[in-house]
Amino acid sequence: MSESGIAAGGREFVQSFARGLSVIRAFDADHPRLTLSEVAARTDMTRAAARRFLLTLQELGYVRSTGRDFTLTPRVLELGFSYLAALSLPEIVQPHLERLSREVDESVSAAVLDGDDIVYVARVPTRRIMSVGITIGTRFPARRTSMGRVLLAALPPADRPDADPAFTAELDRVAAQGWAIVDAGLEPGLRSVAAPLHGRDGRVVAAVNISTTAGRVTLERLRTEHLPALLAATRAIDAELRHL
Amino acid sequence: MSESGIAAGGREFVQSFARGLSVIRAFDADHPRLTLSEVAARTDMTRAAARRFLLTLQELGYVRSTGRDFTLTPRVLELGFSYLAALSLPEIVQPHLERLSREVDESVSAAVLDGDDIVYVARVPTRRIMSVGITIGTRFPARRTSMGRVLLAALPPADRPDADPAFTAELDRVAAQGWAIVDAGLEPGLRSVAAPLHGRDGRVVAAVNISTTAGRVTLERLRTEHLPALLAATRAIDAELRHL
Repeated sequence: MSESGIAAGGREFVQSFARGLSVIRAFDADHPRLTLSEVAARTDMTRAAARRFLLTLQELGYVRSTGRDFTLTPRVLELGFSYLAALSLPEIVQPHLERLSREVDESVSAAVLDGDDIVYVARVPTRRIMSVGITIGTRFPARRTSMGRVLLAALPPADRPDADPAFTAELDRVAAQGWAIVDAGLEPGLRSVAAPLHGRDGRVVAAVNISTTAGRVTLERLRTEHLPALLAATRAIDAELRHL
Repeated sequence: MSESGIAAGGREFVQSFARGLSVIRAFDADHPRLTLSEVAARTDMTRAAARRFLLTLQELGYVRSTGRDFTLTPRVLELGFSYLAALSLPEIVQPHLERLSREVDESVSAAVLDGDDIVYVARVPTRRIMSVGITIGTRFPARRTSMGRVLLAALPPADRPDADPAFTAELDRVAAQGWAIVDAGLEPGLRSVAAPLHGRDGRVVAAVNISTTAGRVTLERLRTEHLPALLAATRAIDAELRHL
């Protein structure tokens, strides 16, 4: 397998780079420490190949070995934060999200669109309301979330995913009103309201939401109290983004 | 250059994996969009090699091409967050940091030690006080920060970095009292107080700090008001970490 090996599909593809990235991704919350054999099994490689990638990661400071186990080091964060640094968005957005979260006493987040998913890029959690943890980098299906609908609604019609007429009408409504409320889209009892952020050229670059539970906030209150606070925050962020 | 090529030093080293990672790191706040030629120049590769790595990243969904430019996609976050997910710490720590930050109305952070540096793993910013932005993944020299001194003080003496007698005495004092205050360690006018977090086995796994400016909070008040609030928060986090 050479560096310039041609992948299935006939295109140039650096197989060893792809396999190395899969070694990083073999580590997660349920597998914070892995032996060489476990890395080989989780990445579908031989032990000899897994060993070369682990040694390379260790040499570069991305992996540490403690006895038989390997763990990632904090240097791995620099890879993920290449994206956030290039985005420049969280640094501007975060203080506004903190303020908004304090004002409404609810969790507040920002996300961008990546294909059919939203990806969290900033978050101020106040309490745990989802059955799964949400951190920066967490992905959810865009159409089931308020931030996703705001982001999908901003796409040119040709770029929108295939959708039934009801969902297309919903996106048109979201585009016209400039915000989206989704009730129980991801989990029963969860509800959220989202609005878009705009770049200097006026295009939608991200979305911000306030998320809460049905037990805490009625839909009526979400619309009459939380939505105006959200829109004030997104206007303030937009003003800063315009002056970047 | 084959996948199993032997690097200088005689060890096994997957050169193409290391070079691929350097392509990801070529993107940053000052270079969010790069052309093929720019990637080649910033990574010291031929255009042909840079092209293969960019196409591989694009195929894997980590890079997007817009005309002549390439940008990272949010999927890159998943690489960095392999580390945070494996750490399990931020999810537990973040709500406590939010509470502490509201209580003292100052920025609050958590960091781990990586060699001679601290690396931020969680942060609640209230206002911008540093001349450089701090995000998750930001590194500072450990000995110049309160979190770093707390983390260095917890190392076995043999693992502590070489230090003059005064700094060794300072680390001994920090270890004995269980907290550190550093005044103007990173920038004039900045001061912070830090305390350690302990894992289930009692070992120090991270540090939390409150950071402020000399203009806002006297050293006396940092010690008599902020330190007790910090220690209450770290005790509450420790209690949760013990039950993991």
